[in-house]
Amino acid sequence: MAPPTSETLTAERILEVTEEVLRRHGPAKATVVDVARALGVSHGSVYRHFRTKAALREAVTKRWLDRTSQTLGRIAGTTDETPPEALRQWFGALFAAKRHKAGDDPELFATYTVLLADTSSVVEEHVLELVGQLTDIVGRGVREGDFAAVDGGAAATARALFDATNRFHDPAYAREWEQPGIEAEFTAVVDLVLRGLRP
Amino acid sequence: MAPPTSETLTAERILEVTEEVLRRHGPAKATVVDVARALGVSHGSVYRHFRTKAALREAVTKRWLDRTSQTLGRIAGTTDETPPEALRQWFGALFAAKRHKAGDDPELFATYTVLLADTSSVVEEHVLELVGQLTDIVGRGVREGDFAAVDGGAAATARALFDATNRFHDPAYAREWEQPGIEAEFTAVVDLVLRGLRP
Repeated sequence: MAPPTSETLTAERILEVTEEVLRRHGPAKATVVDVARALGVSHGSVYRHFRTKAALREAVTKRWLDRTSQTLGRIAGTTDETPPEALRQWFGALFAAKRHKAGDDPELFATYTVLLADTSSVVEEHVLELVGQLTDIVGRGVREGDFAAVDGGAAATARALFDATNRFHDPAYAREWEQPGIEAEFTAVVDLVLRGLRP
Repeated sequence: MAPPTSETLTAERILEVTEEVLRRHGPAKATVVDVARALGVSHGSVYRHFRTKAALREAVTKRWLDRTSQTLGRIAGTTDETPPEALRQWFGALFAAKRHKAGDDPELFATYTVLLADTSSVVEEHVLELVGQLTDIVGRGVREGDFAAVDGGAAATARALFDATNRFHDPAYAREWEQPGIEAEFTAVVDLVLRGLRP
């Protein structure tokens, strides 16, 4: 697992190895010393990038969440689709990304679920970023006449959309994501809220 | 806490005392023997009503959940209100009941949250009952022309309504129910899904 020490030690390289340590050894691991050992470097080298265990854990959790928000940001940022279709694709991509994380690498998912509980400001920022993306799509839909303007404006509507779909993105529901019928239930909720946005 | 042993030992009396034992001593307690001791009767007397610890715990959990579904059933069962107003009242009453349970008696709420995880069939039946009540309101709304008929019919629509509002009734979110702004967020979601039901 340890690379040649001649490789330049970047923050990104440290976070890659931190995720590998977490995947193999679970959430109790991933201290600065564990990660330095896996990298084959002194812990002083890691401390130059991450001054505490908390900072390292926050950064690796943020990186894991950012993978999802970057994918979604591309959907929110394009005007190739109508706003209703963009919303549908955005929620579909969010559900797919979460199911993928939960289903394909359950140990790492369980580990991150533990870390999420300890890094609540990182989670809050992630939710704000996602709701911000939704706000952009809703705002475009209101301007283009696809969506009704509603009380509280685009931001409050975006938050309501995010809340109304949480069974399909909150990790607390991960066990339900492989149940038969979950796709139909997802579609029913998305259909319902999209109808709710009609002018 | 123990009543005179001359009092007739009914299942309801046993469940009342079981809840009291849970409130005082937490989820690890509430075995048949604990409850018999609190009642001042032999455990054989309790076993005549509840043959196992699991049966006793299921029954006390069901009784706790039934208190909510009975209140909601009265709203679903009346035709005094229009279907949209009935839905709004029903969700308001559900959120109020859950917040009341979580906020006014947090130890008992935490205890029941543990029991819920162990009595999944009781929880499933409770959810089916609530979704059934919603189905009645939605069906009436479709018949009276207040709501659009949708793919999958009233039952699928009811499930989508229940899923879309879960931040305001799933105990997993109880910590968020005292946050500032939660009432406005609840109203925004209910408004959104009610608009989604318009013909």
